[in-house]
Amino acid sequence: MGLVVQKFGGTSVADPERIRKAASRVLESIKQGNQVVVVVSAMSGVTDRLLTLGAELGGENPDPRELDALLATGEQQTVALISMYLRSQGQAARSLTGPQLGMLTDGQHNRARILEIETKALNEILSRGEVAVVAGFQGVDSDGNITTLGRGGSDTSAVAVGAALKADVCEIFTDVEGVYTADPNLVSGARKLNRVSYEEMLEMASLGTKVLQIRSVKFAMQYGLPIHVRSTFVSEEGTWVVREEEVLERLMVSGVTYNRNEAKIRVRGVADAPGAAARIFTPLSEAGIVVDMIVQNVSDEGTTDVTFTVGRSDYKKALSLIESDSSNIGTHGVEGDSGIAKLSVVGVGMRDHAGVAAKMFQVLADEGINIQLITTSEIKISVAVEEKYTELGVRALHAAFVESGAKDPKEDG
Amino acid sequence: MGLVVQKFGGTSVADPERIRKAASRVLESIKQGNQVVVVVSAMSGVTDRLLTLGAELGGENPDPRELDALLATGEQQTVALISMYLRSQGQAARSLTGPQLGMLTDGQHNRARILEIETKALNEILSRGEVAVVAGFQGVDSDGNITTLGRGGSDTSAVAVGAALKADVCEIFTDVEGVYTADPNLVSGARKLNRVSYEEMLEMASLGTKVLQIRSVKFAMQYGLPIHVRSTFVSEEGTWVVREEEVLERLMVSGVTYNRNEAKIRVRGVADAPGAAARIFTPLSEAGIVVDMIVQNVSDEGTTDVTFTVGRSDYKKALSLIESDSSNIGTHGVEGDSGIAKLSVVGVGMRDHAGVAAKMFQVLADEGINIQLITTSEIKISVAVEEKYTELGVRALHAAFVESGAKDPKEDG
Repeated sequence: MGLVVQKFGGTSVADPERIRKAASRVLESIKQGNQVVVVVSAMSGVTDRLLTLGAELGGENPDPRELDALLATGEQQTVALISMYLRSQGQAARSLTGPQLGMLTDGQHNRARILEIETKALNEILSRGEVAVVAGFQGVDSDGNITTLGRGGSDTSAVAVGAALKADVCEIFTDVEGVYTADPNLVSGARKLNRVSYEEMLEMASLGTKVLQIRSVKFAMQYGLPIHVRSTFVSEEGTWVVREEEVLERLMVSGVTYNRNEAKIRVRGVADAPGAAARIFTPLSEAGIVVDMIVQNVSDEGTTDVTFTVGRSDYKKALSLIESDSSNIGTHGVEGDSGIAKLSVVGVGMRDHAGVAAKMFQVLADEGINIQLITTSEIKISVAVEEKYTELGVRALHAAFVESGAKDPKEDG
Repeated sequence: MGLVVQKFGGTSVADPERIRKAASRVLESIKQGNQVVVVVSAMSGVTDRLLTLGAELGGENPDPRELDALLATGEQQTVALISMYLRSQGQAARSLTGPQLGMLTDGQHNRARILEIETKALNEILSRGEVAVVAGFQGVDSDGNITTLGRGGSDTSAVAVGAALKADVCEIFTDVEGVYTADPNLVSGARKLNRVSYEEMLEMASLGTKVLQIRSVKFAMQYGLPIHVRSTFVSEEGTWVVREEEVLERLMVSGVTYNRNEAKIRVRGVADAPGAAARIFTPLSEAGIVVDMIVQNVSDEGTTDVTFTVGRSDYKKALSLIESDSSNIGTHGVEGDSGIAKLSVVGVGMRDHAGVAAKMFQVLADEGINIQLITTSEIKISVAVEEKYTELGVRALHAAFVESGAKDPKEDG
């Protein structure tokens, strides 16, 4: 007998038939003797329809408080529908909105952060043998205003509820069967990982793997709550996201990811002196533009080139900001390329194996792919390449690092 | 400078264009120097869509608590949309759900009654010069569960808020221009009433005039809150519902109404003895069937006929209940007719003018319409007739009592 949090995303509750299917996963878990807390998103499409209405009436930047009140209705509908379905099947259940649960957040509308979760209402429901059905994505601030956690926030809600209740597992039900070594749509040899560490999952989420929201992984890591990513529609196990030491099969590289939604900007001949980088990036930050990779080469004759990438939708804005500010920055020229992609390999196994980078560069070179930028972290290496090489690069890296069965050298030794 | 509650029904906020139109009525009122509280329904169609979803997942009788949580999202969407539109127009506004407002009700889901309205949040918003936009139809019970007031409950919400705030007027915006002396679709000579008394409005609402919900009229009468029924789409004044003494133009009959959704059941030869009527109506009441007109004639040779009407959708159920219980009731036979209509004339002027009944019967007789049942109250007379005579009867009564300009005899004298 365990305590299980089951989270269902928008596609898993998109229509009445899918809601019944999701509910059957709840009933199965109860039959196995578990106490269950369900966390759900809005039915697929509902949030977008509400955003469209909001844009039509609230203009380009609808009032954030009212937008939250509007969007929160999507999840409230789903929790009521699932609860009434469970009841119609003889299983007592009770829906809770963010405010009813006591999902206390700060007052940052549209991107609130969870401060505290009251467990009293949840524990009362569970102790009566009922299923608690919690609206994901939403909370309430200390003044009673409805808040939302930002897109994908239901994952975070689920993990936070699981952490607060000290649940045994947080099951994330989705329309894929787990976390894959690469996008299966791109790489036919991609395979499902049985286990992956929180750290690797974090990097993969940051790099574009959409299975889990970054914040939810951080939360789970912080509280040591195992996440089980699995399909709503098939019964096999999916991927467990757990502590590194619980990952038995230690691959050197657990995943190859890509993000083809990047653009590159190169600022030439910047003075190699304190404050230069700040003069480039402060205006971007003030404009709300998120900068991804940043590379500055060693100086040559007192000046240097600074190159960085931004999301493609921010490209033109970023370029014109830099250009209009070029005299202040003191550059010899600005150039850009909106057609690049970022390829990354991720794995805790590379932490103590310097050869991964060298091998990665060689694999790409063998395919004739020129590397434009490189950034690294402890467990990932990312490179920017011309966008047209995305598929070729991902497949080559996957073949070299995953399909070859490259193991963590420590395990071999 | 006054305090005005403005209520917009579902058709007045059916789409973004209409929401903008409704909001313009709010802005006008503010320009006139008023403080405004807005109360709104769900966008037309939304509640029905939610009910359909609820029926699909919750079965024939979806869990009442969950149904309320589901339905309450409709109004929550509208308040957020109106508030963000007002803000986009430079008018500070703030939405409040039933729980946020503190619309405290009992725990009778789907038909909750208002117990108390907290005015603190409302007064704070108003004192800041903001518009408070309140979700109608919904409240919260003492355990924090979301409740709803039943269909049409937004009228009641608006009047209750107006009473709690001691507002100067509660404006009910709708898609008709006011309260008419008869259904304008049926009677070309029907005209808008400038003023009508609470008592008359109550009778008209009970008899099928759909402009206002009965409970809201009772509430307004209790607190002496003037209601102004008017169109969202034209700027002329509509109909004021006020105390009888404030109705200047005293017609003998203020309105002719009809309800063609009735069925008649006659129970023959019932023993004219104590308990007989109870034996007929107790099973109906237990089955949740609402009985409308009840007529029992003077006894003839120790037995009597009891005739009553029910809503047409309850006809078959009521008939079979009476038939299956006929030996207990002790009847000579049961017969019914599902094709009848009720015609009524309403007016405080008839209170001290006995001639109204006689005139009504004569008007119908002149048209060859046979009267099957008669019931009266202090300010209305209703008759049941064959359904096919509905239009003819309504037109004849309207011509005789309203178009003729029949005045309250007291006023003539």
